Amino acid sequence: MSGGIALVKSETVIVQVPATTANCGPGFDALGIACNIYNKLELTLTEENKIEIEISGEGVGYLPINEKNLIWKVVKDVIDKTGAAYNGAVIKMHNDVPLSRGLGSSAAAIVAGIVAANYALGEPFNKQDVLEMATAVEGHPDNVAPAIFGGMTVSLCSQSAVKTISFLPKLPLKMIVAVPKFFLSTKKARKALPESIPIKDASFNIAHVASLVAAMCTGNADVLSYAFDDKLHQPYRAELIPGMYDVFAAAKKAGALGAALSGAGPSLIAFSLDNEEEIGRAMVETFSKYQVPSSYLLLNIDTVGTHRIG
Amino acid sequence: MSGGIALVKSETVIVQVPATTANCGPGFDALGIACNIYNKLELTLTEENKIEIEISGEGVGYLPINEKNLIWKVVKDVIDKTGAAYNGAVIKMHNDVPLSRGLGSSAAAIVAGIVAANYALGEPFNKQDVLEMATAVEGHPDNVAPAIFGGMTVSLCSQSAVKTISFLPKLPLKMIVAVPKFFLSTKKARKALPESIPIKDASFNIAHVASLVAAMCTGNADVLSYAFDDKLHQPYRAELIPGMYDVFAAAKKAGALGAALSGAGPSLIAFSLDNEEEIGRAMVETFSKYQVPSSYLLLNIDTVGTHRIG
Repeated sequence: MSGGIALVKSETVIVQVPATTANCGPGFDALGIACNIYNKLELTLTEENKIEIEISGEGVGYLPINEKNLIWKVVKDVIDKTGAAYNGAVIKMHNDVPLSRGLGSSAAAIVAGIVAANYALGEPFNKQDVLEMATAVEGHPDNVAPAIFGGMTVSLCSQSAVKTISFLPKLPLKMIVAVPKFFLSTKKARKALPESIPIKDASFNIAHVASLVAAMCTGNADVLSYAFDDKLHQPYRAELIPGMYDVFAAAKKAGALGAALSGAGPSLIAFSLDNEEEIGRAMVETFSKYQVPSSYLLLNIDTVGTHRIG
Repeated sequence: MSGGIALVKSETVIVQVPATTANCGPGFDALGIACNIYNKLELTLTEENKIEIEISGEGVGYLPINEKNLIWKVVKDVIDKTGAAYNGAVIKMHNDVPLSRGLGSSAAAIVAGIVAANYALGEPFNKQDVLEMATAVEGHPDNVAPAIFGGMTVSLCSQSAVKTISFLPKLPLKMIVAVPKFFLSTKKARKALPESIPIKDASFNIAHVASLVAAMCTGNADVLSYAFDDKLHQPYRAELIPGMYDVFAAAKKAGALGAALSGAGPSLIAFSLDNEEEIGRAMVETFSKYQVPSSYLLLNIDTVGTHRIG
């Protein structure tokens, strides 16, 4: 395969993948929303056993640019599943999704890698396949589902399947995310959770998540102003995020319907129909009282999910 | 107030109240559906300190016909709340809702009493008031909410409020209820539950109830065929209902999307888009293998809730 004969390369594919916020209060490991900040991934598969990785934006100097890179690992998995004769890749990524802040950066990497590889390989897999592959890598579907489908997603894992419904809330929902200037690993946030919880806390969350989904589907803002409360995971994670409940209270006082940990944190997210700037300022000010420097993002729902842009 | 002068009576009011099924698998204490079997209540409030109660249908010879009667008790509460000068009532009820079988007979009595009294008193209370009063008596809103509003309901109790959303599923959902010939008190069924449960079982239910509501709201039958599973209450109540899981399996084998305890049982309910007769026969046959005589009801969703019919 030498002597002037060019090694085979795939078509170059560019995909855009949205940030995501999971849990949304009561919807632990089940609810997610795609948000309008994006990472872009340009991928070319190569026959040559070599990987080139170029990163701009978030993660420069931090994300590995060798075979340990998460995107390369999932790209390699997809190649192996199809038996295609590619051994390397040229990967260029531009990341706007903040890393390890509870906005689905790892889900974005996983989904971008799978979707881009799928396009580069001629689309052997459909979206349900992508969902199952991404969930297998991430461990749960709450971030990968909205990253794939866009909108608000509700996901379940049964013994035999991962199932997601994506829909657009019948309310002009705005999201205000206070991003503190410290990392929190999902692993550490998961370790804070107990093995068992009171059944009354479980039934509280069941009622609240069911009401949250129904309120989003039917456009009931009155119920939504009660539905973001959680007793399952946030109480145990509060000690990892100084001032969490006070930031929630400040957001509600400034007009938010409710507020929650974004994913496993440390970002806190408020949901609102208006007053976004005021809510964002109130959240950041309250964080600062706890010596937590932060900034806020004003986000809308991404309605499309991951898709090819080049 | 004697000497030929007639004592004051209210207008005579007749209301119809539907049966209800609560929980629907994962929606412990939160989900409910109104069903098209009904109790009727005719109520006249009287100034005279005397109650007359006449019962036909379910509960004859069993339900008290004195001041311990549940309907009278809630009627009396409503009168007391308004300060109206009534001291007694003439109550005639005809009951088609089976008693203590998990079809919301006590919620039906409570809601019928409150709604009828409210009409007789000139409607001082709105539906939200009725919901709050009925929930206070019943202890939780999962049956009273669909009895009041009709359709499928999702309810939550926060510190300060009871909130319900009622909607009609975007699927032609049929309900098949296998009613065993034994009573099971809700109190006994509640005692079977533990104080604490594994957090993974709670998150299982959260994902399933959220998916169930989203599937009903968006009309996704594929997801619905996974969404009725429960790990929160049914495993602990199974020993009170011989053959429960086998009846569920038989219903699914005969074409049901899923099956669940109706409320706290002992009735078992299957949800389906077709094949109702076959599902009903399969459920009853499976119960009979466990020496449980039963019969089945084929039900549709009541879309109206409690309303005045005379």
